[in-house]
Parts: sequence; structure tokens; C-alpha cells
Amino acid sequence: MAVGQSSLPTLEPVAGVRLGSTAAGVRKADELDLVVMELAVQSEVATVFTRNQFCAAPVQWAKAHVRAAKPRYLVINSGNANAGTGAAGERAVEQNCQALAALTGCQVNQVLPYSTGVIGELLPAERIDQALPAALANLSAEGWAKAADAIRTTDTRAKGRSCTLALAGGSVTLTGIAKGSGMIRPDMATMLAFIATDAVIAPDQLQAWLQAAVAKSFNRISVDGDTSTNDACTLVATGQSGVGIAAASNDAEVFVTALTTLCTELAREIVADGEGATKLLAVSVSGARSEAEAEQVGFCVAQSPLVKTALFAGDPNWGRILAAVGRAGVDDLVLTAVSIRLGEQPIVEHGGVSPSYNESAAVDYMAGEHIDCFIELGRGSAEATIWGCDLSYDYVRINAEYRS
Amino acid sequence: MAVGQSSLPTLEPVAGVRLGSTAAGVRKADELDLVVMELAVQSEVATVFTRNQFCAAPVQWAKAHVRAAKPRYLVINSGNANAGTGAAGERAVEQNCQALAALTGCQVNQVLPYSTGVIGELLPAERIDQALPAALANLSAEGWAKAADAIRTTDTRAKGRSCTLALAGGSVTLTGIAKGSGMIRPDMATMLAFIATDAVIAPDQLQAWLQAAVAKSFNRISVDGDTSTNDACTLVATGQSGVGIAAASNDAEVFVTALTTLCTELAREIVADGEGATKLLAVSVSGARSEAEAEQVGFCVAQSPLVKTALFAGDPNWGRILAAVGRAGVDDLVLTAVSIRLGEQPIVEHGGVSPSYNESAAVDYMAGEHIDCFIELGRGSAEATIWGCDLSYDYVRINAEYRS
Repeated sequence: MAVGQSSLPTLEPVAGVRLGSTAAGVRKADELDLVVMELAVQSEVATVFTRNQFCAAPVQWAKAHVRAAKPRYLVINSGNANAGTGAAGERAVEQNCQALAALTGCQVNQVLPYSTGVIGELLPAERIDQALPAALANLSAEGWAKAADAIRTTDTRAKGRSCTLALAGGSVTLTGIAKGSGMIRPDMATMLAFIATDAVIAPDQLQAWLQAAVAKSFNRISVDGDTSTNDACTLVATGQSGVGIAAASNDAEVFVTALTTLCTELAREIVADGEGATKLLAVSVSGARSEAEAEQVGFCVAQSPLVKTALFAGDPNWGRILAAVGRAGVDDLVLTAVSIRLGEQPIVEHGGVSPSYNESAAVDYMAGEHIDCFIELGRGSAEATIWGCDLSYDYVRINAEYRS
Repeated sequence: MAVGQSSLPTLEPVAGVRLGSTAAGVRKADELDLVVMELAVQSEVATVFTRNQFCAAPVQWAKAHVRAAKPRYLVINSGNANAGTGAAGERAVEQNCQALAALTGCQVNQVLPYSTGVIGELLPAERIDQALPAALANLSAEGWAKAADAIRTTDTRAKGRSCTLALAGGSVTLTGIAKGSGMIRPDMATMLAFIATDAVIAPDQLQAWLQAAVAKSFNRISVDGDTSTNDACTLVATGQSGVGIAAASNDAEVFVTALTTLCTELAREIVADGEGATKLLAVSVSGARSEAEAEQVGFCVAQSPLVKTALFAGDPNWGRILAAVGRAGVDDLVLTAVSIRLGEQPIVEHGGVSPSYNESAAVDYMAGEHIDCFIELGRGSAEATIWGCDLSYDYVRINAEYRS
């Protein structure tokens, strides 16, 4: 199940990036599950990885490699997360990096590995090795859509976004793909995103901009609050357009806004495709003392099982929202300063139900697929929006089905 | 639904406490929903209340009254939480306290009010006032079981425990009742517990012992992680036995152990009666640097929707447990030092699946109703046990049903 209809938009090629996808039989036969992404020499690469202490073997290797050398290839498999696999899992990832380096003539530490899929099963490194030549033979600047398809595990649809920016020095392209559908879906370790631009961006700047964009997008979504062992977001700047973006310039602002928007759209796609999701919830918290405080309240509401089941039921259950705000850990909250709206419907004012609350109008609003909840804390000027989804029978069914 | 069978054990009278229950028609006609608990003059009362910032009107009043005077009466209603009801809710609670004070001749601030039930609906104070004489007419030292029944909202069964302790100065009795079944169940604001002893205990000591017992019992359970607006636990020492308990004595140790055990049993009863619960989970974390760290890891596992759905499915899904441990916020966790058992079944060793893992034995173990998960962190000597339950279709059904 997923919220709404969504077809993959046209994904513009990014000069200096080619992608090749193939079926390696990692988990199932004849399904696309392996992607090689080739980066032009001297591309800069920024990365953000899961904060889960039990990060998977490929995450550990990718972290080490990106520190050691300028990456030339990303190798990404779906179907198996290579997480919780101990020393054997490390050998498997090393083997694949070595094989790709041998086939392409780059150094082993210029290969960044990514895996997503079942936790705790050994990666079939041999089958991946054997499929690498086919992936390389497929390399194409037009390969984004096929790659978006290949990195899916239980995602019901491929996710990608693309835009072109007119900057002072010329135009640059920004294209990204992502996968994710619940943090783990019968043992699936989840979110991956790969974004590239042909702009010229200094490495420190690239890393800072990626972190800022991720903080406001991928780090503001929750399907079930479970952080996976394999989450990774990678941003590549190939520099092939020759268009530079200086720090603190107008172009920088345009680029960061576009990057944040792209990440946010991919992040929302992940939530909309959340396990069992029938509704997409945006919790916008304003009037907070800090963005961190706004995020804290937003997450507490968006992750509350009671809010999520009410959302599933289409019930404008303001008592549950109020209770979640109250337990969000904001110690000196003034109840009478808090107001809550569902869309345009006033729900709570001065810590109690709004005098203009209209139950039937609120029920009508809750019948929609996209629910916007606005929470004003009345104690500052910071704000943040957190995206979540409902908790349905299908979430339980999907996650209670025995690993097959 | 609820885990296992459970009938209310015999609840021993506590000298100096009488309870009267009646049907006030708070929410439904002809159901017990009102309790008056009378305390002997000079009884000491310790209290712990919800940390939810949107605490209900009765919580605010009970807090103020217990600070101002020695309580003589507790008035408890189910069916309506009087939460999110603003100034009108405060007037309702004031009216009930005044009415009970007038009927019994005590001061208004010697009445402690408690409410549990639907959030956001005005308390029918008039109907409660009218029923107070009937509750007072019923006052009896034998009234514990009836009161345990009357304070239920969606609890499928009444919860109580009782014990007698042989201390140096003579024997004392400890009896308690509790209610709770999920933090909020279609808008139900939840956990209440009332415990009494006839021992002589100084007020500061009583408060300290209650807090210590609550920290290891009611504060270590989770059905859905949602902290209600009305949670309250009250401990009364009537002193009627004449048996004193000095601080730091052997008797103190016996008493605190008995109090903690009683609170733990009531807390486990609440989880076992959790909304939609079919299995009771005890997560025992050892080898932590502090009890807080052990609690943090235990809660992260016990509250993980993925662990909870696996529990519902009877799936020994160690990857989900491992991932929850990894995201629990223990920053310098050494993966290879972590081991996990389900009952006697070794699951994880050295950060990967145990070499002696036996899937079919683990599946057999998970088929039971009481699941014990042992997590050794290998970094210290502190430990804590957290109790939770599974996440079932019935949890979604119960909480997605429209408020009726």
C-alpha cells in the first residue's frame, strides 16, 4: 500500500555520472538488484551514514574508503543488507570492492559499497562479482531510472527527482534517487539515496550542504521510528559543467534550496511509500525556542502510535495530539499558549478544545490522504516540519509475516 | 485481549483505610465508576504524578492539595479523564472536592481527586456529587476488590496485590490496586495506582520509598510509549498498626523490597492487560554503565514497532533486536561485546548471529506467552528490566475505532 499515485519523473543525466544496473540474483532470480555508478575523475563526494551503532559492513567500508581516496565507483545491491554478518560480511564486501577495482582499473579504496535488504544473511559476494561485468556493460548517463528501480527492496515504487538550475556561470543539473519503505521491512535495512550534480563544489562545502539538506529532509521523516543499520545518503559533484558555486554566494543559496527541496521530496516519497501507509502526515511545529525543540515535538506527535492509529481511522483525535505534545520533553511548556490546527480547522486553543472546533468539518478533512497538522507552541520563532504516516493493519501484517 | 489468565487475589484490609464504590453514571449507566477512599487521621500520603505537561485538572488539584494538608479522602472516577477541559474542568474538580468535604466535614484541600477515562469531555461533576453519599455509605475496610473493579476503564480485568510483612515491631499489611491498559485507549487517560500500608512511616521516607519503587516498576513498563495526562500513583501509610519502620533499618529493606515487588507485579499486570496484547515481553539489560543506560536500551527494544510485531508473529527476529540496541543512543557501544538471549536460546554473540543459534528451538520459545529477552552490553555492571507487550492487529483495531 502507498499514499496516492506517483510515477517517476524524468531524471536528467548529470555529466560525469553513468549508471549500470543488472540482475545478480542476490535474493531473487531475474530481478534488478545490482547498480554500478561511475563517477568522473576528480568528482567530489559527500556522505551521511546511519547513526545506528550496529552499522552494516558496507557502511563501515564506505566510510573508510571515502576518507582515504576520491571515489570512482559506487556499487549498490538490494536484496541483502550485509548487516549483522560479522567478519564473513566484511570479507564479502572487500571481495566485491576488489573485483570492481580489478575490472575498472581503479584502486580498491575508490569503490564505495552500499547494501540494502535482509539483515543477518551472508551477502552472496560471488554472484555479485559475476554480475559486475554486465552492470559495467550497461553504464549509461541515462541509467538513473533503471537504477532507481534496481535499488528497491519492498518499496512499491521507484523514487527520483531532477532539476536544472540557472546559475551565474551557467546551468547545472541536480538528480537524485532514493529507496526506503519503513525502517526495516521483514528484516530489510533501508534508506539509501544517491544524488549527483555537475556543478563544481569544494569538498568541505559539499559535505556541509549535504548535511544541512539531510537535517531538514531525510532526518525529519519517520515511518516507525526504527533507524536502520544501512541508511546512507551520498552527494556527488562531478564538476563537469565547469560551473562553480562559491560559498556564501547567491548561487550557493539557490543550490542549497534546490538540494534541500529535492531531498525533501525524496524523503516525502519514502514516507508516502511507508509500510502499510494510507495517509501522509506533515506535522509543522512553530513558535518553538529552537529548531531542535520543534523537531522534538514534531517527532513525538508523528511517531505516537495513538496519533498514527487515529490518522488511520480518519479521527481528528485532538486529545491524542495534545497528549503527545505534552510528553515531548519540553519542560516549561505553557499549556495555554499552545494551539493546534488540522489543515484550516482549529482544534486546540489555550490548552483545550477550540470554541470554533467543528467535528464534522474536521472529520471531512481527516478523510483526505494528505493531512497537515500545525502546532503553535507560542514560546519562540523556530519551526520545523516532520513527515510521518499512519499505523494500519497492513503495517502489522507486513512486519508480522514470518521472514520468507 | 490480554496475556494469560489472571484473577484478583485476596486483598487484605489495611487498618485505617476504608473504600466505598458506586455507579455515578459518569460515562455509562449502572457501571461502577466512583470510589471514595477514606484515610485515618494523620495518615501520611506520598504521590507520583505524570510528567506529561498537559496534566489533567485533577492532577493539578491533587498536587496542590497534597502539598497543603494531610489528606483524609481520595475521590476517584473512571469514565472521564477531565483532561484538556480548560477552566471548566478545573471548576468541575473543585466542585467535587467541595462536595466531599462538606459531606465528611474535612477541609477541601484534604480531598485528593483522580480521574481516568475519555480526554476532552467535560466531567459530569453534578452526577458525581449526587453519587458521593452512596459511595460514603459503602465505605468498608473490605472495599479494595470492588474499588479495583470500579477504577477500570478498558482494562479487561481488575488488578490488585496484597502482602503481610513480619517486621521487628510486629506485622504490617501492604495492599494496592491499579488500572491501566495502553497509555490511552480511545482517548482514555490511564494509569492509576493506590497502595496503602498500616505501618508508621515518616512522610519524607514514604515519598522516597514510593519514588524508588515506581522508578523500578511503573516507570519500566510500556504498552505504546504514550505517557498519559492523568497517570498517578499514591502510597498511604496510616500508621494504625503502630509498627514503625526506621530509615536504613533491616525492616526498611524488607518493606522497600515488598513495596517494589508489589508495584512491579501491578505494573506487569498492566502490560499483560495491554491493548491487544497477546504476549508479555521482559527485556533484561545487563552489563550497562548505569541503570539509566540499561533502561534506555531496554525501552528502545521494548518499544520498537518492529520488535513488537515480530513478537506478535512469534518470530525470533534477532536482526530487529540488534538494530534496536544499536540505535538506543549508547554512543560508544562495542558491537563485539554484545550478546543476546531469548530465554535460554543464545541469539547474538560478538555482534552477529550466535554459532549455537537454533532457529527451531527459538521459534518454539517464541510461541509462549511470556518472552524473556536478555541483552548483555559488556561494558559495566548495571542492569534493568523493562516490560512491554506485542503490537497486534487488535492494538490497531482498538485504537482506530472511532470514539463512541
